[in-house]
Amino acid sequence: MDMIVLGIDPGLGTTGWALVAGDGTRSSLCGSGAIRTSSKCDSAERLLTICDGIRGLLSENDVDEVAIEDVFLAKDARAALALGQARGAAILGAAMMGVRVCSYSALEVKQSVTGNGRASKEQVSYMVQSLLGLAEPLRPTDSADAAAIAICHIGRVAANRLKTESLVE
Amino acid sequence: MDMIVLGIDPGLGTTGWALVAGDGTRSSLCGSGAIRTSSKCDSAERLLTICDGIRGLLSENDVDEVAIEDVFLAKDARAALALGQARGAAILGAAMMGVRVCSYSALEVKQSVTGNGRASKEQVSYMVQSLLGLAEPLRPTDSADAAAIAICHIGRVAANRLKTESLVE
Repeated sequence: MDMIVLGIDPGLGTTGWALVAGDGTRSSLCGSGAIRTSSKCDSAERLLTICDGIRGLLSENDVDEVAIEDVFLAKDARAALALGQARGAAILGAAMMGVRVCSYSALEVKQSVTGNGRASKEQVSYMVQSLLGLAEPLRPTDSADAAAIAICHIGRVAANRLKTESLVE
Repeated sequence: MDMIVLGIDPGLGTTGWALVAGDGTRSSLCGSGAIRTSSKCDSAERLLTICDGIRGLLSENDVDEVAIEDVFLAKDARAALALGQARGAAILGAAMMGVRVCSYSALEVKQSVTGNGRASKEQVSYMVQSLLGLAEPLRPTDSADAAAIAICHIGRVAANRLKTESLVE
């Protein structure tokens, strides 16, 4: 049976999201987009926009689980701090809605979607388009990354289910 | 007239807080403590504990503004990311309660409380004890740091008020 996963690629300015349904053998896109915040707003307002955006997506859609990228390649400590805050806001939005959040490293996501942990952004975007059977690549690229995270999670859950079933037999 | 400020020294494991009342000439402590989260819990639960803890403090107390430290001396990008998430959770807790959040760098806080931007933790703790007229230093030290942030903010607000008043005259 299909599970529905909300993939999130968090960022203070742009948080990409994608709703993906799948059972581990095939995946389809239910929706995608980006939550944008203005640098003219103070950071509390921006974090609230991200948190409320995720809560809104989860209240409007029947989502089983949330998947989010684990580690960021931040330029410096200040950038990592800003990314951490945005990521925290997204995780909190999910936690407030009682939806489980799973994390994956960029390497795991790339490995899962392209077979290569060091794939380029373009390769990830191309494979997401292909796996979801889309006529065009997902835009913005933050949404494509979010879809990749969701696909990675669905694959992992399906693999664990198979493993459990074969242990039971 | 006294303003009441909730100072926050955020961290994923321990978030120190202090409620300080003051008018810029003298300050008094209304309460202090720490929100602790267990490393056995997943990060979504820990962030929710921090966010809910701040919301609880703001709903139980008549707080005018929240002050939080701006930049962390993180060991590495991963530590900065974790700190950023904790900080984001604390800011979100305040934003959800509609309370304004102001940020100060560690240098500003130390400068404001001890007169020396490079003061040691012990010097900050000693000056907080002295400024608040306490018999003993605040424990845990995260609470003392949170009180220093609140005192810094109260001083800044009072200085700005004086500046505005002298411009009006």
